[in-house]
Amino acid sequence: MSFSARRKRAAVAARAAGVDALLVTHLPDVRWLCGFTGSNAALVVRGGGAARLFTDGRYTAQAKAEAAGVRVVIAAKAAAVAACEWMAGEGKTRSGVRRCGFDASQTTVAGLEAMRGAVPAKVRRGMFVSVGALIAKLREVKDSDEIQKMRAAAALGCGLFEGIFDHILPGGTEAEVALALEYKARVAGAEAMSFETIVASGVRSSLPHGRATRAKLPRRGFVTLDFGVVLDGYCSDMTRTVHLGRASAEERRVYEAVLEAQEAGVAAVREGVVTSDVDEAARGVLRRAGLDKWFTHSTGHGVGLEIHEGPRLARKQPGARKAAAETLKAGMVVTIEPGVYMPGKFGVRIEDTVLVTKAGCEILTPSTKAWIEL
Amino acid sequence: MSFSARRKRAAVAARAAGVDALLVTHLPDVRWLCGFTGSNAALVVRGGGAARLFTDGRYTAQAKAEAAGVRVVIAAKAAAVAACEWMAGEGKTRSGVRRCGFDASQTTVAGLEAMRGAVPAKVRRGMFVSVGALIAKLREVKDSDEIQKMRAAAALGCGLFEGIFDHILPGGTEAEVALALEYKARVAGAEAMSFETIVASGVRSSLPHGRATRAKLPRRGFVTLDFGVVLDGYCSDMTRTVHLGRASAEERRVYEAVLEAQEAGVAAVREGVVTSDVDEAARGVLRRAGLDKWFTHSTGHGVGLEIHEGPRLARKQPGARKAAAETLKAGMVVTIEPGVYMPGKFGVRIEDTVLVTKAGCEILTPSTKAWIEL
Repeated sequence: MSFSARRKRAAVAARAAGVDALLVTHLPDVRWLCGFTGSNAALVVRGGGAARLFTDGRYTAQAKAEAAGVRVVIAAKAAAVAACEWMAGEGKTRSGVRRCGFDASQTTVAGLEAMRGAVPAKVRRGMFVSVGALIAKLREVKDSDEIQKMRAAAALGCGLFEGIFDHILPGGTEAEVALALEYKARVAGAEAMSFETIVASGVRSSLPHGRATRAKLPRRGFVTLDFGVVLDGYCSDMTRTVHLGRASAEERRVYEAVLEAQEAGVAAVREGVVTSDVDEAARGVLRRAGLDKWFTHSTGHGVGLEIHEGPRLARKQPGARKAAAETLKAGMVVTIEPGVYMPGKFGVRIEDTVLVTKAGCEILTPSTKAWIEL
Repeated sequence: MSFSARRKRAAVAARAAGVDALLVTHLPDVRWLCGFTGSNAALVVRGGGAARLFTDGRYTAQAKAEAAGVRVVIAAKAAAVAACEWMAGEGKTRSGVRRCGFDASQTTVAGLEAMRGAVPAKVRRGMFVSVGALIAKLREVKDSDEIQKMRAAAALGCGLFEGIFDHILPGGTEAEVALALEYKARVAGAEAMSFETIVASGVRSSLPHGRATRAKLPRRGFVTLDFGVVLDGYCSDMTRTVHLGRASAEERRVYEAVLEAQEAGVAAVREGVVTSDVDEAARGVLRRAGLDKWFTHSTGHGVGLEIHEGPRLARKQPGARKAAAETLKAGMVVTIEPGVYMPGKFGVRIEDTVLVTKAGCEILTPSTKAWIEL
């Protein structure tokens, strides 16, 4: 889908929300709507998808090159303030915007104050309307260009996993494993890692969020690798847990249970399925194995230009109305990542990123999930 | 200074702002006040510096280990919401907080809504008071522990610059230079880079913000390297510009002017000096050389747990009152980084990080700034 087609959809969503324009300041939203990748931007999208991008002098050349078809305005003041001044302008520069939607989850209290301060008192009342995360919602369903980029990012990630075994050695550090992996990622063309690489070994595998430290890998124990790359702006995300040395029967049992839970989660993915049902498919397997109390997070999340996007695949909230249930749509890209974390002992997590389809899903991270003993 | 001493200072600032407590959610502020480095936190600081840290189940062990002397509360809901519910609590859990300060530049509109929604209607009115960036302001002046860490981070950065010349080769790419530098940084113990490494070569040196691309280094032309590492949480920041092959007289002249401007900026730094006077010291040199119209940004910024902190060393705002002028204080750590960017031709930037002292400053990044032709 072209940027202008995306902006047309944004304009339709804005009209449905009762506003004449959207002021978009969250950078991934800006990038999705016009292609601009600079670090300072405010994009105004009006009816029909007409747009104006406000940024600063560092980005004059880049903004014109990236945001083709969008009027670029270089401003000496804060981009959002310049955008609001323009919207409220009169005479020749009249924008006609009387009600402007903004995303309250991406706008600071001080930012909103500055926006209000940028328009004359007589139009301020009713000018700024909190319309929710309209663009983030549109971004949940990926178009074919995005899917191609996400396949490429995920494939790069799989290659990294398959090439890292030689670096997983007792006595080496977690940080060394992470560094080797990140170096290979960059050589392979990744722009960056999509989050701080997790290498959690031995008892540290029981930390759901164990970023790589100077801890040494044990002779015997689990090593959990959770990592992602950014390629062409899009994030990959995958987790595999391997074992150094011979495993105990309990370690083996937990691994198999997590794998079964993960596969049950993947099997539950299909257009139209309620997100909490995917969570329950995975969580139920662990419950039947008596391990669910150690599964302390939700089953997954959307991925795209950001590492954490909607939808969330979490437990049904007690008392939530049936009507409010969120369902999967074809084109969403989500993670399925159950884990079991036994404090002071060990932990296992297995994660794929999958593309939701009408009939089920396509696994974008098809690296083996079979037991690996190094 | 101990964390508890910092919290006592925060409590004094809170009282001066007319509130009983501060709700701190900006992660570098939380880290500075209690040592916690997790990715989800809300810290309540009350009179005398008593504090409570709210985070989630991923960080149970880590929060207790890092935030010694602080009561840790593991919450299943958003940390700030849990903090507000506790503050508004009654009976045994009474906090006694009736007015809670928050930083409007670090709180989203939706976040403030959620905070307000977490307290009963009868206490909501007047409960949340925007008190400005109190903690960020305190953080501007570094204590001796922080200065030691910043010296170490800066020294690591200098070592990287001095070891990178062999990688600056015509025909190699900017990205390769950046990758070599970042790899060496990690091997030397850096936790991360403090921002996306800038390697801008040839005509791209005229981009003030030219992150490393696949562009090949030219046979003849400038290469600007602007990079920093994170060590023990603290950021380094430095820029050097070197020349590949023989330079033109104009290139040489611009380099010398930027160097003179940079040294004039450094020479102007001293406790009590107005920040805009430091900017003017550097800018004036470029003005006298007829180059100031190509110096399109401000002269510097504070550095610490974040790569961009206060104070800003920028031009005096027209109409600004004398009384509002910000002055340097001993213990501030700031960059001095003038540059000249001639669109379509070339650019030069030279940057040091310096520690403000009573008598002048200590340059934390003493790598040579003399002309280097490779």
